[in-house]
Formats: sequence, structure tokens, C-alpha cells
Amino acid sequence: MTAPEQAVQAKAIELGKLAVRATTAAGSGHPTTALSLVHLVTVLMYRVMRWDPNDPAALGSDRLVLSEGHAVPIIYAACADLGVTIGFGDHARPMTADDLMALRDIRSPIDGHPNPVLGFPFFDAATGSLGQGLSVAAGLGAAARIGGIEKVVYCIIGDGEAREGQIWEAMDFIADHELTNVVAIFNCNTLGQSDFVAAAQGWQQLQRKAEAFGWTAVAIDGHDPAAIEDTLRRRRELGAGRPLCVIARTVKGWGVPQLGGISHHGTPVPKGELDAVLAELDQRAAELGVAGFDPRASKETLRIAPPLPSPGLQSAKEPAGFAAAIGGDPKLAEAVTGRKAMSPRRAYGLALKALGAANPAVVALDADVKNSTYAQDFARAFPERYFEARIAEQNMVSVAAGLSSGGKIPFVSTFGRFLERAFDQIEMAVIGGANLKLVGTHVGVTLAADGPSQMALADVGFMRAFAHVRDSHGNPAVTVLTPSDAASAYALVLAMASFPSACYLRAVRADLPLLYREEEEFPFGGHKVLRQPGQGSRHVVLAGSGYLVHSCLKAADSLASQGVGAAVVDAYALPMDTGAVLALAGPGGVILTVEDNYVGGLGSELAEAAAAAGDDAPQVRALAVHNIPKSGRTPEDVLAYVQLSVDQIVAAAMAAAR
Amino acid sequence: MTAPEQAVQAKAIELGKLAVRATTAAGSGHPTTALSLVHLVTVLMYRVMRWDPNDPAALGSDRLVLSEGHAVPIIYAACADLGVTIGFGDHARPMTADDLMALRDIRSPIDGHPNPVLGFPFFDAATGSLGQGLSVAAGLGAAARIGGIEKVVYCIIGDGEAREGQIWEAMDFIADHELTNVVAIFNCNTLGQSDFVAAAQGWQQLQRKAEAFGWTAVAIDGHDPAAIEDTLRRRRELGAGRPLCVIARTVKGWGVPQLGGISHHGTPVPKGELDAVLAELDQRAAELGVAGFDPRASKETLRIAPPLPSPGLQSAKEPAGFAAAIGGDPKLAEAVTGRKAMSPRRAYGLALKALGAANPAVVALDADVKNSTYAQDFARAFPERYFEARIAEQNMVSVAAGLSSGGKIPFVSTFGRFLERAFDQIEMAVIGGANLKLVGTHVGVTLAADGPSQMALADVGFMRAFAHVRDSHGNPAVTVLTPSDAASAYALVLAMASFPSACYLRAVRADLPLLYREEEEFPFGGHKVLRQPGQGSRHVVLAGSGYLVHSCLKAADSLASQGVGAAVVDAYALPMDTGAVLALAGPGGVILTVEDNYVGGLGSELAEAAAAAGDDAPQVRALAVHNIPKSGRTPEDVLAYVQLSVDQIVAAAMAAAR
Repeated sequence: MTAPEQAVQAKAIELGKLAVRATTAAGSGHPTTALSLVHLVTVLMYRVMRWDPNDPAALGSDRLVLSEGHAVPIIYAACADLGVTIGFGDHARPMTADDLMALRDIRSPIDGHPNPVLGFPFFDAATGSLGQGLSVAAGLGAAARIGGIEKVVYCIIGDGEAREGQIWEAMDFIADHELTNVVAIFNCNTLGQSDFVAAAQGWQQLQRKAEAFGWTAVAIDGHDPAAIEDTLRRRRELGAGRPLCVIARTVKGWGVPQLGGISHHGTPVPKGELDAVLAELDQRAAELGVAGFDPRASKETLRIAPPLPSPGLQSAKEPAGFAAAIGGDPKLAEAVTGRKAMSPRRAYGLALKALGAANPAVVALDADVKNSTYAQDFARAFPERYFEARIAEQNMVSVAAGLSSGGKIPFVSTFGRFLERAFDQIEMAVIGGANLKLVGTHVGVTLAADGPSQMALADVGFMRAFAHVRDSHGNPAVTVLTPSDAASAYALVLAMASFPSACYLRAVRADLPLLYREEEEFPFGGHKVLRQPGQGSRHVVLAGSGYLVHSCLKAADSLASQGVGAAVVDAYALPMDTGAVLALAGPGGVILTVEDNYVGGLGSELAEAAAAAGDDAPQVRALAVHNIPKSGRTPEDVLAYVQLSVDQIVAAAMAAAR
Repeated sequence: MTAPEQAVQAKAIELGKLAVRATTAAGSGHPTTALSLVHLVTVLMYRVMRWDPNDPAALGSDRLVLSEGHAVPIIYAACADLGVTIGFGDHARPMTADDLMALRDIRSPIDGHPNPVLGFPFFDAATGSLGQGLSVAAGLGAAARIGGIEKVVYCIIGDGEAREGQIWEAMDFIADHELTNVVAIFNCNTLGQSDFVAAAQGWQQLQRKAEAFGWTAVAIDGHDPAAIEDTLRRRRELGAGRPLCVIARTVKGWGVPQLGGISHHGTPVPKGELDAVLAELDQRAAELGVAGFDPRASKETLRIAPPLPSPGLQSAKEPAGFAAAIGGDPKLAEAVTGRKAMSPRRAYGLALKALGAANPAVVALDADVKNSTYAQDFARAFPERYFEARIAEQNMVSVAAGLSSGGKIPFVSTFGRFLERAFDQIEMAVIGGANLKLVGTHVGVTLAADGPSQMALADVGFMRAFAHVRDSHGNPAVTVLTPSDAASAYALVLAMASFPSACYLRAVRADLPLLYREEEEFPFGGHKVLRQPGQGSRHVVLAGSGYLVHSCLKAADSLASQGVGAAVVDAYALPMDTGAVLALAGPGGVILTVEDNYVGGLGSELAEAAAAAGDDAPQVRALAVHNIPKSGRTPEDVLAYVQLSVDQIVAAAMAAAR
């Protein structure tokens, strides 16, 4: 055995013991998965990766994404051994052995699964919901390529985890975009949680799959330090122009016979058995001839190479305004000055392109609908910053999380309905603090002809849940924006780019009359009173969003002719300043909310505020979609089908007005 | 050309013309995708499939799942030509040419994408959100195998669609379970919506991928009737024990040069160009020597073979009750009679097994956490009805939709957090009327040690959206159930099985004290008043669910000692009978909702009812999770971190009580 192999073996066993002890201290965790990675992690973190334990998030450093997040104790063990910086700002400090033993404690940043925002900046993203890490790695690789940074992004994936389709979406994406700076390492320990992995996830079949997906796949013994290091160092040569996939055959519970086989997943070693397990690992050290070997002494063999310097960030300018964006295009000018109508999604395309011109950090992704979302404006102008994600929304969102961690501001567009497919990925990105800019187009039943499989209707309830959760910046974890015209859509897209937290813009397909001038400002949390209550023997406040703001304006005209004074509110943001809207209706008044989605949006927002305020609050009645829609040839056909036509709004308002 | 080939060619062109005309009439749709399938669909529906146009949903018939749902006009054209039965019950009738021309009309069952519940029983499931059909086909194939039905399930998948990871989850699942009665047909027309498909979706690479996934993949010219028929008829021989994948090279906009290339996706032929397009197709007929050929005359060549008879359904018995299920197991008996505590997930396992014994239609799936969800009880007892779905939740849910269409009652379990990954698939299943029984375990922050990547918190907002949508049975599209103990969990699981619509049961990980006796009934929509308001100078109603019902009971004790009379409501169901809970608090009273999830659940449910009721309603204040949680070693640690400890509930109740 060479000196480096000896040092790696000794260090690997030391880290394995630490990981076992930490999970026993925590009373939960996954020591056997951690043990399957002892050699891979040691070779990566102590010999192959270029990085700086004192600045683990440095943009110029190689990255390690642990897709199988439950294996994290082995990374924590290495970080405690190396004194890697944890915590932020004034609280930053080197990780200690005591920190490691505080694993999973409520007061500790050493969480059950990787999460950078709790104070563990070594990681780029939260992982733990399986199958997402390779996509994050792709985003990091893409950001590095744009930035001209020569770093390598390693991603460790479980063999059981390889069943998640998103892994194969990421394999396609990385091959497609020739991101050869990403290395996928499959940890083939043959065991899932409840059983052995299927034959389909056996190492040979995974190797065949990876090759079929356009990668070079090399199978190695994942407990052979020399084989690991040789393979990783020969990345370019072995890859031969393709991305490199390492199929590492490993043993779950490596080194400890009594931890082998099924029924040891996610189970810490009981305190009473800890000494015996640690003794087994010492025995392995003795067998390998590294007992008593102090890897600390071998500074030469376990010397971590520093990161490469990374280029400075380019500065951003002020993006062009709505009028300037329309500029010399006669068709657009006609839309604004002539027809005075434009779809919010068209405005998204314009704003995204203006942002691209003003800010080199802005990047965009779309899932093969860029000609519908108008992300194509950006794709054509800035092809090096546009990533066509094809029809694979989960991968798209997690790639965006990686781009965010790589210092970019990623805009992600597709039909709002199809972002639903990536709700898990969106939540993981939010947990990890990613600066996502989500744009869902064709939302609501006004999409009409294509039918319910294409209509975002349950998106609002899900996203509003995050609108009332604080993220690590103290902001709403997701700000939900539903513009009612092209001018507000344009302004909101610009505002999204300069906001540090995640946002979700909902843009309807239809052309809508312009309601606002370019100068109008749309603060997050705000709303617009488009019409004051006016005259009438009875009154009602109509609060709508998106397409239905226009329906509310029409309804208000009709109500006025019937003696009911109707105010109209454009509720473009969630969370919203509910107090001001309740005050507009006043005690004894009534608000009718009108939304083109299933319950859980604007109606809930105002009802919760009114019900909490109690006696003096106005009544809140809610119109929303309560039946599954179908195709219709016009938006009005489908709105009537779901009881949201202008006439139906008027009837509900007449019944409610006080 | 043989007589059958002539007949197929003539019929294919006739159907292509109908599909083009229908989309032009609708003013939207995807004629070019439809044209790429003219020969495949004609061979399948007129020659290869065994089925009955008068009974298109017959259980014994071969099935066709159109995963790329936007190609549906070509199926509609065939069904109009064949007079396939549409509509239900008294409204059932043969489809006509007029029906076809009503495509996408608000009054028509001929919807923009496949949807059986609108009145098109030829289809088994709603499709249109891409990548889900092959999983549905797998479920249909699995149901047929259980039922001893010798049918074949064909699934047509787009090449662009093959980018969705779920397709590869389904490929694994089908190979894993040796479902050789499923045939995957990739329609390789080389074009997506906004561009050519990536090299990764080229026909040769798809063929390599399918082979690597354990299928036999045969590439053919998808416009050659003889090649199509020969390949499909030789399914068993070609497959040689593996499932058969047909890689069909096709032309998007087949037969019409002016519809070739990009920029013709999802665009109907303008009325003014229709005659020219139809003339092109007539020209193809002339070139093929089938102009004027009347395929109706060739009864022998386009004769559809009838379905095989299918075995009758087995009858169900009454499942065992909670006490009987515990039966002779001393550990379980100790949990109930000794410790008087058991986790709801443990009760799920018991109830599922009891259902399995009582009802042969009950089947189960789990995503490699069956030892955590206790689905393993069923898996061991009824291995032929258990489908291990491995770590691939999207496929699991869509397989369940297929099993439902095949006459089964599928229970689907995993951590609630991971069902989030399948929200799109759940919505599609609900749209198509699938009888899903979803069980999400380990919900809420009380999961504690594993951290936020494993905690279902945003699930309630999403699912409640469907709780207020009516499905085709007139029921809530999803009934959301959060039991507070094992007895109620057991009863609710039994109730789920006999309810015809989708349900979602949320089962916490922790052992919880038993609150109910076996005899207690838990009607959907109901709630339980566990403690009446009692004595006190001030009063409050505490309404909680799941784990927090127990916290509310403890809080009520503390409040009583401080002179506040607190009622406690176990709000186990959404939608719920809000009126009764509002009445419990009464005018001038106050309800404090307490839920271990992000906003959008119980608090919204009661606030909406109170705000709509107006002046006489009680005040509703809501406690929920408003920060992203982290790991903690005990449930109480994490509850305190998110401001939901018993002390915090007491403090909020003291501030709210009236």
C-alpha cells in the first residue's frame, strides 16, 4: 500500500468511527450509509477536491453535492476533523468534535440532512428528498461555465435513489449541455431502506444506463483509495468528451459485519453496542496495517489543494422600462398604443430580455415551451445564459437551485400547471435558500381550449403556504404574484430580479387590456384600488387577481347601474396587506373575492385576516373554482362553466352587498 | 401492397383528414402530432387490438393509453369513424362526425386532452400532463395480471415526452415486475414544441436506453402498416421474456409537406388553408394507390377482434375491526391495553392488511419505506397484490391510477413529504376520476430528527384545494384525513376503502395515546368534540388535528387551572362541518386552530366559514407553522422551534379567550 493509500485508509476509518458515534449520540441517522462512503469521501475531501476549509463556499472551489442527503454524517465527520467553517458572519467558527456530537440537536446547525442556510456553507443546497442532487450539480456546473471558473462538481447518488426519474432527467441535461465539469458518483451499496435494490439498480445495469444516456461510465471498487483517486484524476481522459460517471461498488455498513444486510437502514448503533462496532473498525485498521497510523502526521498525503481564484462578478445596470422594451417593434407598439392589450406572458418575455441586457447574473431556463412563455426572447439574445431544459420540469427547478448557489439569478418558466410537477423540488430549493424566480404561464381556466390537464388551479394553495413562512432572509419564503396586465407583469418581473428570496409569477395566456402606466410601482405585499366604492344604496368590495380583475371591473359597471357601489381591488400579491383591504370595506361592509383557481388563495388570505380581526371586520365571501373544468373554445365559456362569468360575479355581489 | 396494407393506408389517410378538420373546427389542437400517428393508431385500433367499440371500457379488452395526450384528435377521428360509445348511462350513444367537429366545445365530451369522466370511456385515465401514461399502462397491466385477464396494454409516448424522468421510472417498474403485457410505443417524430428534440431523445438513443432498462426495443418505420402489425403481433417472440418497446420513426405532419418542421406544434390549420392540406392527403392516397379505396368495404381487413371474456369480480367481506386486527399479537396488545398508545401509521398497516383479507380488489404500493409506513403487513400477507414501487413516487401514483381503472382499490403509501413529488400525478388521477387512496406518513414537524426535507408541511394547502372541488361522483375530489390516534386511523382507513373518491390520510410517526374506542364512527366531513367548554370566566375552543389534538388536551388542562374554559375539537377531516364548530364557540366566542403544517388547512377552513358568516360568527385565530423547521431530537423540541409547544398554545389561547 502506498503512503497516500495508507493515509486515506486510516482517515476513512477515523471518519467512519466519528459518523457512527455522532448518530448514536443523536439517537437517529444513517450510519450504515455513511460507512459505505468512507473512502469516497476521504479521497474527495482530503486529496482530490480543490477547496478551502476556511471558506467552504468559495465560488472558485470544487463542490460536493450529496444527493443521498441521509449519508451526511460522513461529511460532517470530515468537516469536524478539518475544522471547516460553520455558521455565518460574526458567528462563523471552525467546526469541532462537540459540534459533530450535537448532530440533529435543535440548537445545532448540524442538521439531519444537508442544509446550507442553517449554518453549513460547505453545502450548496438542501438535499434529503432524493433524486435532486445531480440536477443541483448541473446548475453549479452551468454557473461555473458561464463564469469561466474551472471547478469540478462532484455528486454522490445512492443506487436505490437512482430509481428517481429526476436522476435520468439530470443525466440527459448534463449530456445535452456537455457539462463535463460534473462528475456523477453512484454509491452502489446494493441496499435500499426496506430491501435490496432492484436488479434495475444493480451496478452493471446502472453502468449500461449511464452509457446509454451519453456518459462514460467507469465501475470501480468504492473502497479502493487508489482506484477512486485514479479515476477521478483522469476525468477528462476517461470521459473523452463525455461527462464521467463513476459506478462505485460499496458495502453498506463497511467494516462492521453486524451492520450488514437489510434492516440496518436509518438505525443508529445502540449505545450498548457502540464499543463493539468501534472495535470492529479498529480491527479493520489493524488488518489494513494502518492501526496507530496518524493521518494528521502525513501532511503531504492529505494536503488539500486550494481553490482556483474566481473572476470578479460583473456589475448590473438598471434594466430598460416597459416603453423602452417595446421600443422599435411595430407589432408590440401596436399592442400597447393601438389595441392597448397584451398578455402578461408577452410582458414576461420582454422584461426577461431587458434584465438579461442589464444584469449578467440573470439566467433563464424553460421546458420546451419558450415560444409560449416568451422565454425565447432571452434565449435568442443571450444563448450562453439560456438553458433549454426540455420536457423535464423537476430537473429544471433543481438546476435553477444550483445556478442560484453558483451566484446566478435563475428565471424558470413553463406552464404554471407543469411547475406543479416540481413542487417537491421547489420546496427543497426554498429550504436551502435558493433565489428562485419561477414563472408559470397559462394559469387558470381562462386557458380554455386545452382543458384541465394544462390549467394551473391548485398552484395557489400550495404556493401561499410558503408565502406565510419566513425564509432565512426574513422574507416570505415564496412571494406569489398574479399581474392583471402587461405593464404590471413587466414591473413585477423586474422587481423579482432584485428581491433576494423566491418568487412565483403567474401569467395568464390571454391578451388583457392595459390597466397601468409604466411609472406605476408594484411593491410586494401591495394591492391596487382600481375603483373606489362610489355611489350606491349598498356597497361591496370586489377583490380579484389576474384575468378576473377585468371581470370585476365589468361587474362593477353592471352593479353601479343596479344601485350597488362596487370598489375593485387588484390583489396582485400574496402575502398581501390585508388590513388596508379590510379597511376599504369597513366594519359592516363586505368583500367578495374572485379568483380563477381552487381555494387557498386570495379568499383564504382575506378571510383569515377578517376572522382573526373578529367583530369589527367586514364579511368576506369567496368565489373560486369548485368543479374540475373542461375544454371550452373561449375563456368566457369555461369561466361560465366554473361559475365565474361576469354575470355570475354580479349575481354573487348583488347577494352579498350591504 | 397487400389488401390489409391498402385498407390501413386508406383508413389512416381518412382519419388524418378528420383529425385535421376537427382541430380547424375547434380553432386549436395538435393536428401535426395526430398525423404522425395515423398508421400506428389505425393498425392498433382496426386490426391488432381486441376490443368492442360498443363497450370501449370492457375489462377484458386490450387498452390504449395515449400518454402524449395532445395527439388525441387522431383517436377521436377513429372513434367517430367506428361509432364508439361515448357518454354514460342513459346518455350513452355512438360517437358521430358531428361529435368530432365539436372538439373542445364547452358542451362536448370530446375534450382537448383525454379524459374518461367527461364521457369518453375508451380512455382509462386523463392524460395531457406529459410522461404519465406509461405508468398508467403499467397499472392496467398489473390489474390484468392479478385478475387473470389476458389483455395487452399499448401506450404511445412522444419522443420529446421521453425526457420526463417518470417515463424511465415506469420503464424500470415494468421491467421489475415483468409486466410483459405492456407495450411501449415511442412516437419518434423528432420534433418537440419549440424545437427539434435533443439528441438524447433521438430514436437510436431511445432504443439504447430502452435496452439498458431491460426491455427489448425494436425500431420500425411508424408509417409502414406491415412493419407495425408484424412487430405488435410478434410481441412475445420479439420480447423473449422482456417487455417490448417499439421505437417508431415517424413524421410530424405526415403527408402534408407544408406542416413539416418546427413552428407547427399545437397550431390548427387555418380555415383558408384547410382545402389545400386535405388535398395533400388525398394526393398521398393517390400516390399509394388507395385513392377511392373504400376501407368500409373491406370488412375482412379492418375487422376488430372482440375482447376476451374477463372473470367475474370477487366479492368483498366486512374487514376485521381494530381489536380483532390486534388479535393475538402480544406486542400490539400491549400497545393498546398496556401502554394505551400506538402510532397512526402502525394502525394503517393493520387496517390495510385487514382490508386485504376482506376485499380482493384492494391492492397496495409503497416507495421503499414499507417498513416505516407498515405497508409491509400487507406486502407479506398478499404479495401478489403488493407492488413495490421503489424510490419513484411519480410512477407509483400513476400506476395506482391505472390499477384503479383496472377495477382495483389502490392504497399508496410513503412519507407525506414525498407524495408532494407526485402532486401533478395526483391531480391528473383526480381529473380522470381515479379512486386513489393516498397515505402519507411521518407528516408534520413532530417527525423531528430527520429535518424539513422529510416533513410534510405544504401538503395540506395543496390537498385542501381539492377538498373543495367536486369530482365526477359529486364528492370532494380529495378528502383529507388526519387521525389523532390509532383507533381513528384504523377506522378511517377502512372508510377510505369503501368511499368511491380519492382520499389522503396523514399519519404521524409518533406513538400517540389512544383517544377512541373501536366502536367510534368517523364520518367524512365530521369532527369530534373531545372536551366541552366547561367552567371558566373566559372561554376558547381549541381545534386541532393529529399530534396536536393531544397538545390541545394538555393546554386545556392548563387553561382550566387559569380560569379559562377550553373546549377541544379533533378536526380529523377536511372538508369539515364548519357550522357545528362555529356554533360550539358561538357568537362572540373564539376558536383557536392549532395545526402542525404551513397555512392553508384547518385555520383557513374555519376562517373562511366564519368570515363568510359575518357578524354573528366567532373570531378565528390560527396557529400554524410559520418558519422552516430544522432537526430536533424530540417532537417537543421542534414544536417549540415553530412556536407550537403546549406552553405556546396556552399563551395564545390566554390572549385569545373571551
